[in-house]
Amino acid sequence: MSKTSLESLRRQVLAMSGYTPGEQPQAGEIIKLNTNENPYGPSPHVIEALKAAITGDRLRKYPDPMGTRFRKAAGAALGIDPDSILIGNGSDDCLTILTRSFVPESGLIVSPTPSYLLYKTLAEIQGARFETVAFTNDWKVPNPWPVTNANLLYLANPNSPSGTVVNSAEIDMLLGQISCPLVIDEAYGDFSQENQLWRFQGNKSAQGVIITRTMSKSYSLAGIRFGFAVAEPQIVHQLNKVKDSYNCDVLSLEAATAAISDQAYLKEVVTKICATRKRLESSLVSLGFSIIPSQANFVWCTHPAHASASIYEELKKKNILVRLMKYPSHEGLRITVGSDPEIDQLLIQLRNIV
Amino acid sequence: MSKTSLESLRRQVLAMSGYTPGEQPQAGEIIKLNTNENPYGPSPHVIEALKAAITGDRLRKYPDPMGTRFRKAAGAALGIDPDSILIGNGSDDCLTILTRSFVPESGLIVSPTPSYLLYKTLAEIQGARFETVAFTNDWKVPNPWPVTNANLLYLANPNSPSGTVVNSAEIDMLLGQISCPLVIDEAYGDFSQENQLWRFQGNKSAQGVIITRTMSKSYSLAGIRFGFAVAEPQIVHQLNKVKDSYNCDVLSLEAATAAISDQAYLKEVVTKICATRKRLESSLVSLGFSIIPSQANFVWCTHPAHASASIYEELKKKNILVRLMKYPSHEGLRITVGSDPEIDQLLIQLRNIV
Repeated sequence: MSKTSLESLRRQVLAMSGYTPGEQPQAGEIIKLNTNENPYGPSPHVIEALKAAITGDRLRKYPDPMGTRFRKAAGAALGIDPDSILIGNGSDDCLTILTRSFVPESGLIVSPTPSYLLYKTLAEIQGARFETVAFTNDWKVPNPWPVTNANLLYLANPNSPSGTVVNSAEIDMLLGQISCPLVIDEAYGDFSQENQLWRFQGNKSAQGVIITRTMSKSYSLAGIRFGFAVAEPQIVHQLNKVKDSYNCDVLSLEAATAAISDQAYLKEVVTKICATRKRLESSLVSLGFSIIPSQANFVWCTHPAHASASIYEELKKKNILVRLMKYPSHEGLRITVGSDPEIDQLLIQLRNIV
Repeated sequence: MSKTSLESLRRQVLAMSGYTPGEQPQAGEIIKLNTNENPYGPSPHVIEALKAAITGDRLRKYPDPMGTRFRKAAGAALGIDPDSILIGNGSDDCLTILTRSFVPESGLIVSPTPSYLLYKTLAEIQGARFETVAFTNDWKVPNPWPVTNANLLYLANPNSPSGTVVNSAEIDMLLGQISCPLVIDEAYGDFSQENQLWRFQGNKSAQGVIITRTMSKSYSLAGIRFGFAVAEPQIVHQLNKVKDSYNCDVLSLEAATAAISDQAYLKEVVTKICATRKRLESSLVSLGFSIIPSQANFVWCTHPAHASASIYEELKKKNILVRLMKYPSHEGLRITVGSDPEIDQLLIQLRNIV
């Protein structure tokens, strides 16, 4: 009487293609400029904290489900209420928790396009609909905002792949027009001139706004999977019911706590990356690329005389990985701001190609 | 025009109470016998592998999304196809992935009771219904099995809190009567005389059966959050679309790979725990407790003359934590098999109490 297991799967799951992460070669001498990793590695305090935590007694016991030490450290470092923080196994975990908390099956997620492709995957897994709204030509959100019946609005800010930012006034305008929570995905927020954390600082708590952050990019901890969301404490209380009890492990909690407590190191690394970004942008322009000035740790570019796909392939032959991104409306290369020697190598190869 | 964020939450999320994990005191001299942690710590190879992996370059880069090295090591250690393995951020993550893959909103999850309380929480988060079927008096699944319209059947085997096992013949009988996948949650499978992994060994691949395993208990790695599921490769392929791309971090992958490769250490630790379990069981019987012979790393007991709640409270005053578990049909104490000195301390206090 048994069905085959495949027939038992939800049809949405069978139908979806799944999110494709950037290539992660596990061996070889590759210059990886494809997944916005940080070339400088984490704060030395992270290494020390991890080494101290590797004991049999720490590893054998469950972690603190609420990540209390991390939330206190993050609250102090960022000037926000620890009770407004939800811990996540990467900010993708936070996005999953938010989707499951706010979006019913057959519900609606809306997001500007082109943007982070995971939002569509999250809608598909949930069995929800996904609608996109095109950014304006100057990478703003359209006003008036055309979709008012969504359950959740995802705004990557800075946006990927464009590296552009929607400013506070524009976000206020958007907030006035929607009746669902606005999730501002600030994965790249530390590289930007402006972010939205002020909405939660100094005992404020912004109704209808949820900010997500990752430690993968600016804190250089992509390997340990840690992110967090900032929302009204009463919302965080509800989100905690949806998160897995032990979603963050003892080592990632240690690493994240040490990293967020070292804001001086963060500033130093971000300053270096922004300087290299500026050099990369002007070099790309010299080579004839069209670029969009970036407020993230990557640069989005196209070349009028060379297909992005062929540049991508040529670079790959030289062991340099960048991200070729294809949207219905846009196709281009998203190049991570690596170290200065890595960018030098990239530019040497690009000079041969274009 | 904005709603309050609380009003935007799915009503199922607002209504649910959430899973309550066992207490995890973060400080103090506590004898923790409440969450089935392993007193012996992980294999020394785990410590070595972690120490070697703590470099800035490993931490700054994303992990391998497919956990290929772990799956190969686990395949070799357990005699199963690496492509039949799904990696998870703890086996709870695997249970979440399975729920999202097979159970639609308003779908049905069924499970014997009393058992692991998370299954109900997973149904609630998904907006699905949850039905329980009582174990028989001798802790078997009833035959005939009464619920045939479920989307997923969860069977904890060995079961918590009872520590009892449903054997292969009984599982075959169950499989003949259901039309949905059977998830056999073998979190405690290494402590049992029999487990169901044979269904996937020697190039077999059991249709309609999915086994979940955790590294938290027998491998003593509750702190690092790692589990896995075993299913037909075509099912694993679909489940990978639902899991978060980077659900397991570089350090937990390293630890899990080293741990599963050291089967000799596993056997040594399991042998010690089973010997202590036998001593704990006979000592509890001497003290007048009713116990059920356990095939897990805990013992479920009640005392005819003392309320479980009062024994729990008295032990807690002496800094000994056990798990007080209340089901509509059963109330009792679930006591983790700790180290011999820990069990000695427990027995001294119990002698004073009963």
